[in-house]
Amino acid sequence: MDLQFIFELVGTYFFAVSGALSVHDREHDVFGAGFMGFITAIGGGTLRDLLLNSYPLVWIDNVAYLYAIFAGILTAIFFFKIMFRLRKTLFLFDTLGIALFSVLGAEKALSLGVHPIIAAMMGMFSAVMGGVIRDTLTNATPILLKKEVYATACLSGAIMFIVLQDLGLSRNSNLIASFLVVVIIRLIAVRYKLSLPQLDWKK
Amino acid sequence: MDLQFIFELVGTYFFAVSGALSVHDREHDVFGAGFMGFITAIGGGTLRDLLLNSYPLVWIDNVAYLYAIFAGILTAIFFFKIMFRLRKTLFLFDTLGIALFSVLGAEKALSLGVHPIIAAMMGMFSAVMGGVIRDTLTNATPILLKKEVYATACLSGAIMFIVLQDLGLSRNSNLIASFLVVVIIRLIAVRYKLSLPQLDWKK
Amino acid sequence: MDLQFIFELVGTYFFAVSGALSVHDREHDVFGAGFMGFITAIGGGTLRDLLLNSYPLVWIDNVAYLYAIFAGILTAIFFFKIMFRLRKTLFLFDTLGIALFSVLGAEKALSLGVHPIIAAMMGMFSAVMGGVIRDTLTNATPILLKKEVYATACLSGAIMFIVLQDLGLSRNSNLIASFLVVVIIRLIAVRYKLSLPQLDWKK
Repeated sequence: MDLQFIFELVGTYFFAVSGALSVHDREHDVFGAGFMGFITAIGGGTLRDLLLNSYPLVWIDNVAYLYAIFAGILTAIFFFKIMFRLRKTLFLFDTLGIALFSVLGAEKALSLGVHPIIAAMMGMFSAVMGGVIRDTLTNATPILLKKEVYATACLSGAIMFIVLQDLGLSRNSNLIASFLVVVIIRLIAVRYKLSLPQLDWKK
Repeated sequence: MDLQFIFELVGTYFFAVSGALSVHDREHDVFGAGFMGFITAIGGGTLRDLLLNSYPLVWIDNVAYLYAIFAGILTAIFFFKIMFRLRKTLFLFDTLGIALFSVLGAEKALSLGVHPIIAAMMGMFSAVMGGVIRDTLTNATPILLKKEVYATACLSGAIMFIVLQDLGLSRNSNLIASFLVVVIIRLIAVRYKLSLPQLDWKK
Repeated sequence: MDLQFIFELVGTYFFAVSGALSVHDREHDVFGAGFMGFITAIGGGTLRDLLLNSYPLVWIDNVAYLYAIFAGILTAIFFFKIMFRLRKTLFLFDTLGIALFSVLGAEKALSLGVHPIIAAMMGMFSAVMGGVIRDTLTNATPILLKKEVYATACLSGAIMFIVLQDLGLSRNSNLIASFLVVVIIRLIAVRYKLSLPQLDWKK
């Protein structure tokens, strides 16, 4: 089986788990959890494909993605009952998802022939916009608007992938390296509470 | 005149009324009510057509839809002044709208050749996403994230339509039966305050 | 250089400035300000082009738009430090942006062959939807839902442009006249605190 396809399904699964888990502090029913898992899983890639006019959308073209999402939703529903570290779990699944789609999204954009700067943004969108849509629907502040190194981690991985691809690195090595860049940046940022400079607004 | 076209205009009209009425408890002007009526009316079908790459959008291709929306907005503005049961009115128009577009949306998706599971989801999207976008813009919690049997009613009607179509039922009978399934589920759910299981999150 | 292209870049720049400045009262970092500047700048035109199936999107096709956006974000970051009239500055940049894109957006829609009513709406969308998306992401009430003459100013300019074009007025005169209509209506509306009639809801 195609290795990239497996990675995409796994990343989709990760996002579905994180999205379904994200409703834990609200009065949502199982449908709400499922819907949020779905939105988080397909939101970023779908937005990217809409902007780049890339049809058919992957999850409409191949129902395996919906199965991966459904598996993620079920995991969240039953997995959570035996897990007691919800915040770390959410963070783990979200990090793995954003790292995967930062690089795969950038690669797909490049393959469609866009400018490298656009491709880097598309990698970042593929990773974060699912969560942004999810947060907007639940009236939470999207994480990428908070003082956290989140989207910049994704952007860094996407940029790294594009640069390494241009330098001729093999695809597998590139995917792994760029994926790890995103994960490491997020781990360091959260552990040491790093953040970007805040704007010093004069009022 | 084409019967389906009339039904689509009527459903659009229903949604425009419910969307314009939904701003009654906020300080919106007539433009805000009109904009919300428009968003609710075209939001679901437009999202479905964007996802399925189905152009031109029906309300851009045929200005009759805008006329139906405008009629709905006017109805809401003047109709409300003589109505005293706002919540029941909103519920009625919304229910008729979601039932109609659950089945018509699923039918359109099937005609575009997608997997039946996707078609059922598209039927549900056509019905509920207009209201979700409306609620998101007004900072209300989208109804499908609350503990209510709402989107599952739409999904049931869409699934029923797809199954009955596959079994060979005539189109008109199928539309009516599946439409009624959505309406009846919503009526029962609201009257008996039914809801899906809530997730038992361990904190 | 093409004069319209310059105007589009300038309008994009205006919107990026207003979007980046709009986060001044929240705890956003420089990335958040930049993201909001980007969303405000491309949001309206992108939505219009998605609805009209007009690809490739202008900011994906030509990286000059991203440069204009980046310039606007930098302007907001450094410009603000020496400016003390934030609210008037935001208003100025936003007004210039919405006026420009009301007319350019309507013109583009007409060139794609849509009904004049749709073209007028597309002009309005091009102008306001970037700000609506921005406000929705930051959980603010979109300005066009408040009691203000905002989107109607844009709609007026778009309608004026379409009518004057139909009457045969030269393109440059039309752009300038319709642009000024939007600016003047906004200036008058804000100075004299004009608003549309509010709906008299019976509760």
